[in-house]
Amino acid sequence: MKLIRFSYNNSKEYKFGILKNDEITEITFRNFFTKYTKTKKNFSATDKKIKILAPTLPSKIIAVGLNYKDHAAELKMPEPQEPLLFMKPPSAVIAAGEIIRLPKSSAQVDYEGELAVIIKKKCFKIDERKAKDYILGYTCANDVTARDLQKKDGQWTRAKSFDTFCPLGPCIETELDLNNVIIKTYLNGEIKQDSTTANFIFNVFQITAFISNIMTLLPGDVILTGTPFGVGALKSGDRIKIEITGIGSLENRCV
Amino acid sequence: MKLIRFSYNNSKEYKFGILKNDEITEITFRNFFTKYTKTKKNFSATDKKIKILAPTLPSKIIAVGLNYKDHAAELKMPEPQEPLLFMKPPSAVIAAGEIIRLPKSSAQVDYEGELAVIIKKKCFKIDERKAKDYILGYTCANDVTARDLQKKDGQWTRAKSFDTFCPLGPCIETELDLNNVIIKTYLNGEIKQDSTTANFIFNVFQITAFISNIMTLLPGDVILTGTPFGVGALKSGDRIKIEITGIGSLENRCV
Repeated sequence: MKLIRFSYNNSKEYKFGILKNDEITEITFRNFFTKYTKTKKNFSATDKKIKILAPTLPSKIIAVGLNYKDHAAELKMPEPQEPLLFMKPPSAVIAAGEIIRLPKSSAQVDYEGELAVIIKKKCFKIDERKAKDYILGYTCANDVTARDLQKKDGQWTRAKSFDTFCPLGPCIETELDLNNVIIKTYLNGEIKQDSTTANFIFNVFQITAFISNIMTLLPGDVILTGTPFGVGALKSGDRIKIEITGIGSLENRCV
Repeated sequence: MKLIRFSYNNSKEYKFGILKNDEITEITFRNFFTKYTKTKKNFSATDKKIKILAPTLPSKIIAVGLNYKDHAAELKMPEPQEPLLFMKPPSAVIAAGEIIRLPKSSAQVDYEGELAVIIKKKCFKIDERKAKDYILGYTCANDVTARDLQKKDGQWTRAKSFDTFCPLGPCIETELDLNNVIIKTYLNGEIKQDSTTANFIFNVFQITAFISNIMTLLPGDVILTGTPFGVGALKSGDRIKIEITGIGSLENRCV
């Protein structure tokens, strides 16, 4: 099932819906997406008055560095023994179709295509065998990074935190087949990243459990699971698209 | 003026108030603390049914590393040319009087007494000369840090992000005299940190403007301004108190 957040006719209010083919059925619910009710309101996804928003408003975004074997090999770095964590602020989130703004204070801004985990319910100190119950679904993410500032600062916070540096979307797929997730990144139509989560060093259940043993995860929180081989720079005018099998594609333009 | 957030008689609902001497006047407002209205409801701060909560529920907590000249000298490190940023998650926030839980995965958890800035209104790309208009006030903070994990990871996120690792409070002082802010930390009654913001490398206006040129700050967001000379370790049973002139004191026990 594909869950979306959307607005209609430039309203500041947002709605949640289920997307099937090109039809959106509005839903209401308590407690984020759990126990929802279908309304009788239906929309066409191609209706120009529909604006698809980022699928969640997270209280936090936790990310894992260096989590693909092919990317570690590319960098000639040893595979980490534990997930290496960093954060991006909620203020960095944008939706598919919105603009990535390249800041003047950086001379090299890179794309990083990633699979994002969306948390379903309050999650603290869980075991990885239970992690599945706490995950609502998955979406595409672009962990946009000012590479020069990342190297300069040592800490990655500034480099990862500019407004618009966390495109998310277009939907949350609740039934993703984790055995066969192909992730591809296209820069102006040319393929740049092409990997699968079979190359993960830590799988999504291990990562979710690891983070939950540090901090309480809340409904809607986002975990970015790392980027594969093939990151590269963005310049003004570029179109960058992350495509994940079973989810869809997340495309943004840079200015 | 001292602004607080509190609950009454174990209610899950919270209220905002103005604290004067030992009297609390409940207030209502639009847009966080701006344009508030005093209600006719008054409480005694010593009423045992009153629970003082952390004064804000931030959308993000941005912190500055190495921002006191005395601390940089102590570490024999050069003073940074720009603020070095990291983040703590909102899930780490606790109030004065609540318990700091020392995690089993760390063998050395340190206290770090800090002055915290609370943002008043949406703040993006401001000049430091305008920063004052965007600051609601100041509170005490303890940037609790798993020192061993900080060194092990390189990135500081895990070390700074455990639940209970961000005590904040007890109130937001809106009229703090920034020319004379003395910050002291007491461990089991013994003074451990004793400095003033005259030792700041970057002042609160410079820090706020710097961060706003990276990311949009929202009402209630928190900026931690760094810790002075004299950090040290906590063990179970310890009482740790941060005291800032004009604000009050933030005491927590460790378990």
